[in-house]
Amino acid sequence: MASSVKKPWGGRFQEETDRLVEEFTESVSFDQRLALYDIKQDLAHLEALKRAGVINKEEAESIAQGLTAIETEIREGRFVFRPELEDVHMNIEAALREKIGPLAGKLHTGRSRNDQVATDFRLYLMEEIREVLRLLHHLRRALVDKAGEGLQIILPGFTHLQHAQPVLWAHHLLAYYEMFRRDAARFQGTLERTAECPLGSAALAGTPYPLDRELTARLLGFARPSRNSMDAVSDRDFVLEFLFDAALTMMHLSRLAEEVVLWMSPEFGFVDLPDALCTGSSIMPQKKNPDLAELLRGKCGRVYGNLLTLLTVMKGLPLTYNRDLQEDKEPAFDTADTLKVSLRVAIRMVQGLSPRVERMRAAAEEGHPTATDLADYLVMKGLPFRQAHELTGRLVAFAEERGLKLWEIPLEDLRRFSDLIEEDVYAWLSVEGSVARRRTYGGTAPERVREAVIQAQRELQEELEELERSL
Amino acid sequence: MASSVKKPWGGRFQEETDRLVEEFTESVSFDQRLALYDIKQDLAHLEALKRAGVINKEEAESIAQGLTAIETEIREGRFVFRPELEDVHMNIEAALREKIGPLAGKLHTGRSRNDQVATDFRLYLMEEIREVLRLLHHLRRALVDKAGEGLQIILPGFTHLQHAQPVLWAHHLLAYYEMFRRDAARFQGTLERTAECPLGSAALAGTPYPLDRELTARLLGFARPSRNSMDAVSDRDFVLEFLFDAALTMMHLSRLAEEVVLWMSPEFGFVDLPDALCTGSSIMPQKKNPDLAELLRGKCGRVYGNLLTLLTVMKGLPLTYNRDLQEDKEPAFDTADTLKVSLRVAIRMVQGLSPRVERMRAAAEEGHPTATDLADYLVMKGLPFRQAHELTGRLVAFAEERGLKLWEIPLEDLRRFSDLIEEDVYAWLSVEGSVARRRTYGGTAPERVREAVIQAQRELQEELEELERSL
Amino acid sequence: MASSVKKPWGGRFQEETDRLVEEFTESVSFDQRLALYDIKQDLAHLEALKRAGVINKEEAESIAQGLTAIETEIREGRFVFRPELEDVHMNIEAALREKIGPLAGKLHTGRSRNDQVATDFRLYLMEEIREVLRLLHHLRRALVDKAGEGLQIILPGFTHLQHAQPVLWAHHLLAYYEMFRRDAARFQGTLERTAECPLGSAALAGTPYPLDRELTARLLGFARPSRNSMDAVSDRDFVLEFLFDAALTMMHLSRLAEEVVLWMSPEFGFVDLPDALCTGSSIMPQKKNPDLAELLRGKCGRVYGNLLTLLTVMKGLPLTYNRDLQEDKEPAFDTADTLKVSLRVAIRMVQGLSPRVERMRAAAEEGHPTATDLADYLVMKGLPFRQAHELTGRLVAFAEERGLKLWEIPLEDLRRFSDLIEEDVYAWLSVEGSVARRRTYGGTAPERVREAVIQAQRELQEELEELERSL
Amino acid sequence: MASSVKKPWGGRFQEETDRLVEEFTESVSFDQRLALYDIKQDLAHLEALKRAGVINKEEAESIAQGLTAIETEIREGRFVFRPELEDVHMNIEAALREKIGPLAGKLHTGRSRNDQVATDFRLYLMEEIREVLRLLHHLRRALVDKAGEGLQIILPGFTHLQHAQPVLWAHHLLAYYEMFRRDAARFQGTLERTAECPLGSAALAGTPYPLDRELTARLLGFARPSRNSMDAVSDRDFVLEFLFDAALTMMHLSRLAEEVVLWMSPEFGFVDLPDALCTGSSIMPQKKNPDLAELLRGKCGRVYGNLLTLLTVMKGLPLTYNRDLQEDKEPAFDTADTLKVSLRVAIRMVQGLSPRVERMRAAAEEGHPTATDLADYLVMKGLPFRQAHELTGRLVAFAEERGLKLWEIPLEDLRRFSDLIEEDVYAWLSVEGSVARRRTYGGTAPERVREAVIQAQRELQEELEELERSL
Repeated sequence: MASSVKKPWGGRFQEETDRLVEEFTESVSFDQRLALYDIKQDLAHLEALKRAGVINKEEAESIAQGLTAIETEIREGRFVFRPELEDVHMNIEAALREKIGPLAGKLHTGRSRNDQVATDFRLYLMEEIREVLRLLHHLRRALVDKAGEGLQIILPGFTHLQHAQPVLWAHHLLAYYEMFRRDAARFQGTLERTAECPLGSAALAGTPYPLDRELTARLLGFARPSRNSMDAVSDRDFVLEFLFDAALTMMHLSRLAEEVVLWMSPEFGFVDLPDALCTGSSIMPQKKNPDLAELLRGKCGRVYGNLLTLLTVMKGLPLTYNRDLQEDKEPAFDTADTLKVSLRVAIRMVQGLSPRVERMRAAAEEGHPTATDLADYLVMKGLPFRQAHELTGRLVAFAEERGLKLWEIPLEDLRRFSDLIEEDVYAWLSVEGSVARRRTYGGTAPERVREAVIQAQRELQEELEELERSL
Repeated sequence: MASSVKKPWGGRFQEETDRLVEEFTESVSFDQRLALYDIKQDLAHLEALKRAGVINKEEAESIAQGLTAIETEIREGRFVFRPELEDVHMNIEAALREKIGPLAGKLHTGRSRNDQVATDFRLYLMEEIREVLRLLHHLRRALVDKAGEGLQIILPGFTHLQHAQPVLWAHHLLAYYEMFRRDAARFQGTLERTAECPLGSAALAGTPYPLDRELTARLLGFARPSRNSMDAVSDRDFVLEFLFDAALTMMHLSRLAEEVVLWMSPEFGFVDLPDALCTGSSIMPQKKNPDLAELLRGKCGRVYGNLLTLLTVMKGLPLTYNRDLQEDKEPAFDTADTLKVSLRVAIRMVQGLSPRVERMRAAAEEGHPTATDLADYLVMKGLPFRQAHELTGRLVAFAEERGLKLWEIPLEDLRRFSDLIEEDVYAWLSVEGSVARRRTYGGTAPERVREAVIQAQRELQEELEELERSL
Repeated sequence: MASSVKKPWGGRFQEETDRLVEEFTESVSFDQRLALYDIKQDLAHLEALKRAGVINKEEAESIAQGLTAIETEIREGRFVFRPELEDVHMNIEAALREKIGPLAGKLHTGRSRNDQVATDFRLYLMEEIREVLRLLHHLRRALVDKAGEGLQIILPGFTHLQHAQPVLWAHHLLAYYEMFRRDAARFQGTLERTAECPLGSAALAGTPYPLDRELTARLLGFARPSRNSMDAVSDRDFVLEFLFDAALTMMHLSRLAEEVVLWMSPEFGFVDLPDALCTGSSIMPQKKNPDLAELLRGKCGRVYGNLLTLLTVMKGLPLTYNRDLQEDKEPAFDTADTLKVSLRVAIRMVQGLSPRVERMRAAAEEGHPTATDLADYLVMKGLPFRQAHELTGRLVAFAEERGLKLWEIPLEDLRRFSDLIEEDVYAWLSVEGSVARRRTYGGTAPERVREAVIQAQRELQEELEELERSL
Repeated sequence: MASSVKKPWGGRFQEETDRLVEEFTESVSFDQRLALYDIKQDLAHLEALKRAGVINKEEAESIAQGLTAIETEIREGRFVFRPELEDVHMNIEAALREKIGPLAGKLHTGRSRNDQVATDFRLYLMEEIREVLRLLHHLRRALVDKAGEGLQIILPGFTHLQHAQPVLWAHHLLAYYEMFRRDAARFQGTLERTAECPLGSAALAGTPYPLDRELTARLLGFARPSRNSMDAVSDRDFVLEFLFDAALTMMHLSRLAEEVVLWMSPEFGFVDLPDALCTGSSIMPQKKNPDLAELLRGKCGRVYGNLLTLLTVMKGLPLTYNRDLQEDKEPAFDTADTLKVSLRVAIRMVQGLSPRVERMRAAAEEGHPTATDLADYLVMKGLPFRQAHELTGRLVAFAEERGLKLWEIPLEDLRRFSDLIEEDVYAWLSVEGSVARRRTYGGTAPERVREAVIQAQRELQEELEELERSL
């Protein structure tokens, strides 16, 4: 049964085992991003240990000094993270021990890496979400600013990528304002649910030391301590929510990006972008590739992927902590980075959009976009709906044959189809008239859109004041 | 270049084209589930048209009667949906026309299928979310009831599927209470964002008819009308949120299910389930397969899949309505059905769980689970942390050699390791003592868990009153 | 601790348990699609049991007659599947028992539902894959036919949705030919791996009856029996492969569909589709919505979702059969149906594509698409690369200023930039010249594309003969 | 309408634009992994340019020397990649220009970054797949070696995580052998489809230079040049296939890992792992966490995520190259790294598995696992199936009441149930007998499993010789 005599590459595994295991299990190569949150947590935990009488005042001072020194090293980029110490927590603990000796060990009384990492990670995500909220604010502002400049600009509104009805450019932009407003609301809800502090849950069961969990939660900026220690160390809902919120925002950006790509194509030619936001070609000066928009669209994929990664990890995991949970950080880090840079790029892109007003306007007239208005006109004049539609159809065919737009048909020709038609029909047939009449709340009429712009500005102003207070 | 002479199966495509196109594009086979919402919407829209003067009182009455008759047919299962009429809206419109003649057409003034379907779909999801909230309430109640019965039961708390520290069965169950509480909060947030009424957005640009959108929103139970007509007809965030919330709940169920499967295995033997909730085998009477739990775990996959389906559909879609959006319904329907039946099954499963108290208790004593407590004891007595741990390690080895549990070591032997150890150590070494000491907020000490049960009961009671009010 | 006094809707769960469990666990509502494969398998298994001496000749005949009668009922739609019998296997077994009495039980000697369902499902997928291969063949034929008609048609080749270089319409179509050729190769590989017969693996360990597994495998059209009984009942790789192959094909269809949507937009206007393949609007006769293409694009999402569903189900499942595996069928059925109808629609869509030759041609001249050719011309004449590019850039600017295409610049003007330029340059500047020169293998030169068409026709012809043999 | 007066953080965007765009679009931070493949490609392309007469012999030598010098710098880690040069191709071109002057530009005649990056990426993946095939070979060898040692070891075979029938440990291990054998076959198919060389497709349309694409394909180790230039620059099927193949392998590893986690739990206790492959705890010497297995299971998620990332990116992309495609590399790199280290870890884990033979054996006897055998015995003796089953059920109940295993019931007691039962029944009731009788091909009988081991060894030996030839 001796089968493994010839293993040309097998030999190397034996001696490499330790390095292999270390390489496979270490997390400090990525979780070092949590280092400053870890220090912050250490200081709060230290305070709780001191008040609980586990650590005396002198010890506490010594530990605090050690931690502060390490914090400085980290901030200045002088701290060396060592993979053989596995994770960020052990790296900092080891550094503390080097500085202040065995006393360092006391800091880990009543705490485990299970609650420690959950606390760090929540702190990290809370900060990232706040930054995302700021960027979403700014992106909405860019959209509103752009909309405010474009209250007279008309372009074709599309369904099925076919011309449907003329709309205001500002109205189109404000549709994105709504999407990003919803995104902000979602992130806000996630932030609230993330603001529960696991610290004090220890390995899984709580701790025998009389630690004041309200205190540490408050010191760290959480809204409250978590309610069940077993849930606290095995829950990753807050990460999944963040990933999903990010996925929706990226999806919205991908839609905007798709439109920019379309609008920049020679066939559409609806917008222009500054050279700085495009890539060119040394040969074809006309060639301006909308690379930023394409990448924005493409990066949607990686955030979807990150969401799926963690959903998969969590499926069917028994309580409480399992090492699988270590796979939660990289997708979250990558998502936060991707989302933030994507929002920054989107802000610049929106700011840089120059509508090519004439091309938009000309396109808006193509395809008898006001035929619906004509039918509506006839209904208003009392013609039953069905007949109005049928008559409109015949008039469109008439226009087609003669190569005319509807509004170019002389009144006498119009009246040969129906004597309900009078001079006032031209106001209904024009693209401007069509837009102006859509006055219901949420419609594209300039007065409605102007109100929407003003409301959005007011919202942003209020939000801004709140954001500034929270800085 | 004539290449297509021989097409043995190609011929059939030609004649089948119409049927093929119809089969591919129809949606009434699934969107008929929206029929009653469509009627409800029709009635609200009718009221708005009447008030706007588009329809007079007699017409309105006639239409309302027609709609009511159709509603009855639908409720009684007598309404025949025809695929050649494509979707639920056209089916109902056609039926109305059959009943009241061309007047039926007036009902579609100022409305398009684009805002119509978005309105129906939101109404549907709002109702499904409310039902899901009720089921989540009930599942949490089942967990709390079960926890309330198990405040004395101890089982091993696991990390890495290894025994870590003893915990209360009730504490373990309440970890799930927390998960489903978060789920309810998420669904609540989604419900609020879903409660915006698109009706009146028409095809994409709003409508020239002076429809009171506040009125229709209110009549239909929405919180407010949507703010931007282009967004309103192309937004599917509310569906995605529902799918994600459902995915998280299914993930939590998959964790519970995994534990039930483990606990039911002969090796664990921690719980029993009533025969009615298992499948057996005609040969092996001992064999009780936890099929419900396995399917609960497996059904997580389909909800993840449904979420991905719609995320994929939405990626990179330009504004506004595109036919791709028709693919939003089946994943949502399947998810709502799966989630609801899964919650019902989970409720029954939790209600049916019989803890096998002795097996749990015996397992909780395996593996020196109170070694951490011994170290804590020594720390409390003043021994520095590191030394306490080292000494504990040696004591565990001593116990192992002699085949003893830690609490079975005589005091004199213990004192040979350290004279800090006194009679009171046995309270620290026992499994009950270990559990009892974890008294920090959120910990597994019986007094904490009892408080958690009471708090949960109070929450559920308040929620119940609210739910009853909303019925 | 009595908390559950008030459960307004809780009461109903108790009495509904049996129905709930049945509803949750039954599979016959969907696995009845496997009924005919199950009969086929029964007959093969019967033969093996007979040869093994487990069943005598008379018994075998009686069973075979019973099965044949059931088969007829199924084919004629008269067979009633009952959910309380759980799955398709139990339904057929019960029907057989009704027909021939307890002898029916003998048919299940040496077999379990675990190997039975795996065998049925493989038979089903093998047939579906063969049908998909036929449809992929036909789609490629449609592309080649269309390409063969379009060897003179030039349109702009796009990168970044910007005009890059002119290409042949036929070349563009053949790019899709390549994609679907790869798809077919993948499905072929999957078919080979699916053709292993699990029958005889029984519950998980094999069977004590001397069944000839080679025989049953051969009778059922498998290539060979599976090699390990535990793997055989818990493996679903073949389904995942099918789902992935389908996902790639749908992705390719989504790209084609996206292009058709673009090409049909008023701005592009590159192609037309027959009315029968579009949806229109009663008001705007010009409005032709490419619904088929939009749905093709959208349906990509559901197949991605189905793939993810099963990937999620399989993650982390211990051996061997677990009830989670029951969740494998619906995603596969839905995928097969979606894929087949999508391919049929795509075939019709490709057949229906009418290139609007002039619009394509005119677009191909926009944006100085032959600037690269001019640089190449200068390189050929001996100018170093960098200088050639720089000079071309200046010439493009010159053309831009004067509103000329490059080929409209008089020779004397050209020569003022470089006296290397001679009369022959115009052959390089023309769109036709540019296309014609790209003669490397795989390039867009008409002679290359014609060869590619011929090669594709030959491939299809060979494949056709093979398919016909296999019918 | 002036709204943007107060932008506290907005100001910074303006000045950062260039850096932002650069940061967003650069790829050299990750695509530098392709550097050596890029050089290799450069040398092959150089040869083609020389033979085509585009570059003369002296030029070619000078370029080759420059490239070789750069290659050395890269290999020695001295080459500095600069993000402002965007990607690996521009970095190498710039370095070449620094070394040999403007002549460097000639190397890019007849080539674009579009075909260049596709060629590099295929070369990279071909090498990674070959390494994966080697690791899969080694993992299968480890399984077969372990199986070869365990031909006498019996453990319970599970369905539904309940004991079903006893099986050989070797048989269980070989189930995984089959999974990884299929994985290898899939990777082999992907390798063949990846081995098509895009070089010479240029930007999208081919090139006017008479480059010998057969030559470059051969020089680079491809099987053939790609067939359509537009497809060649926009196709990423080969990456998706790699990601899917990897996802399936990771799924298999997650199943193995799940089982190791279960087997290592105190409740199962079926296997032991060397300390070097576990993590411990300084306090609880008994605690051995199977971290490697947990991470193996968890890392399945990231590979699923990577697959989804690229599927999302590709959905609905029009031809040909779009910048979105740049998002293909990171998921592939991460997947290749994850897969390779996971396979290495799995090899070590399998090698390290020590079955705890007695615990397995004892468990195998629990739950009357040979009740099926008893029924089979009675059937063999002529009892009709139904009666045999019914009788067995009663006997199991009898055994249960008396606390006996079936084989512990005295013959006289057995015969009171049926006088068909004779002394030879005990051979049927024993666990060994049950295993031994499952002799059908693929069954768990020792003789079958021994044959399977020998067949696997032979396969591996043949494969090894092939792999050695290909080194």
